[in-house]
Amino acid sequence: MSVEFTIFKGSASGDIVESRTRRGAPTETQVLHFKHADMALGHEGVGTVEQVGESVTGLKIGDIVGWGYLHMTCGTCEHCLLDLAPEHAAPLMCGGATVFEVLASYNIQPTDRVGVVGIGGLGHMAILFLAKMAMRLGASEFYVTQGVTKFEIGESLSHLLVATSFLPDWKPYLSVIKPKGTIYPLTVSLDDLVIPLFPVLVNGITIQGSAIAARSVHKKMLEFAARHRIEPVIETFPMTKSGVEEGMARLREGKIRYRAVLVA
Amino acid sequence: MSVEFTIFKGSASGDIVESRTRRGAPTETQVLHFKHADMALGHEGVGTVEQVGESVTGLKIGDIVGWGYLHMTCGTCEHCLLDLAPEHAAPLMCGGATVFEVLASYNIQPTDRVGVVGIGGLGHMAILFLAKMAMRLGASEFYVTQGVTKFEIGESLSHLLVATSFLPDWKPYLSVIKPKGTIYPLTVSLDDLVIPLFPVLVNGITIQGSAIAARSVHKKMLEFAARHRIEPVIETFPMTKSGVEEGMARLREGKIRYRAVLVA
Repeated sequence: MSVEFTIFKGSASGDIVESRTRRGAPTETQVLHFKHADMALGHEGVGTVEQVGESVTGLKIGDIVGWGYLHMTCGTCEHCLLDLAPEHAAPLMCGGATVFEVLASYNIQPTDRVGVVGIGGLGHMAILFLAKMAMRLGASEFYVTQGVTKFEIGESLSHLLVATSFLPDWKPYLSVIKPKGTIYPLTVSLDDLVIPLFPVLVNGITIQGSAIAARSVHKKMLEFAARHRIEPVIETFPMTKSGVEEGMARLREGKIRYRAVLVA
Repeated sequence: MSVEFTIFKGSASGDIVESRTRRGAPTETQVLHFKHADMALGHEGVGTVEQVGESVTGLKIGDIVGWGYLHMTCGTCEHCLLDLAPEHAAPLMCGGATVFEVLASYNIQPTDRVGVVGIGGLGHMAILFLAKMAMRLGASEFYVTQGVTKFEIGESLSHLLVATSFLPDWKPYLSVIKPKGTIYPLTVSLDDLVIPLFPVLVNGITIQGSAIAARSVHKKMLEFAARHRIEPVIETFPMTKSGVEEGMARLREGKIRYRAVLVA
């Protein structure tokens, strides 16, 4: 038995194209998700198990599952059982995992002063996680940096997560990082990182590349999110051609607060 | 009682200027070095204790002592008693400390594959230290990178110390770093670091700024160097006006193998 489902794709003209596709019945350990978007339009998916292969033991039909950006996956561990509302779980699958990876893997302590630049899809989730991790001050301070060349934020930062949609001018940020502090540039960009080297050397600054999470961290992130009822701030759109178009239009205008979710 | 001593200074024209200066007798915990070069022409000094303040207990007249670049020093701990030949100890005071800081502070393991780019004053000492730390392969592989755009070095590197005299094109180096590997750009430069961001993100690369060493690491470095008879490869010049000029000329021509030392 195979399954037919709807996908929404991009196209050269930028128009959203709705089409139908068919996939064979799952075999062995495969699980088939009934989902309405393929990789072409997203990589943060949550769905319901419709069929299971004969060797599947951990999942059953009707389970809510999710997956994120797959990075060197073994192919057998790419699904996570969820204990979260699907629309809140979806943004965690890549964006949530990306910021959680930084918080979990680089020894950020509850006593550290941590900065988040770029309060968008990733940045707002970093703040949600940090607040629940009882980081000192949480997000109790807020500074507008646009047009500001000299930052005055009081005590310097041990860690700075940069989740801006474009790479910033690093100079003013370097001035608010403690010696031996770490900058995490999370902006996915094909541009070069261009940063003054001298203050990085003299102050022993770490620039830490990080993208998405190992499966173990991803799992920990979902458990943490479920335990603390982490709910990303989302705008939902119907998973239809016009819904996709409306969501993408608001995204392009920079109006989404803070993650657009398509709901079937 | 005061001490008069000779200093060699630079000048606007680039000529070496020899002059005499006078410093008051040491007080309390001060130690006075009889040295022939002041900060103007170097910051890696080794000398002999000529006089000691009345509260000095750790050093006596005749001791060979050294000091390096002073970074946030407390002012009372800037001298290290040496168990090394003065001419071999001098290059360790800043250059040696700079590379040792990286080896000692960032969890480099004997099983790691470590690269050193730029075999000059710093780079050759990194190799000396690494060999004695029993790093796998030591410096048993050597690759000329000049004019090479695609590096083929077999197994990738966990750590890469870059001690070039100018900042390199980073692209080929990124291709030989393991995921989660670390690059240490040690080149002191007022230029920006310009490095492709995408491979840094996807592979979780760390770019670690580092300059000179904490006093505790500096001390450990000197002990390690003495224990393993680390002898930097040096060229000595007499500590005279013409000696300074000759050494500086060879330095400018890029001929020094690998550290010029002025000997009184």
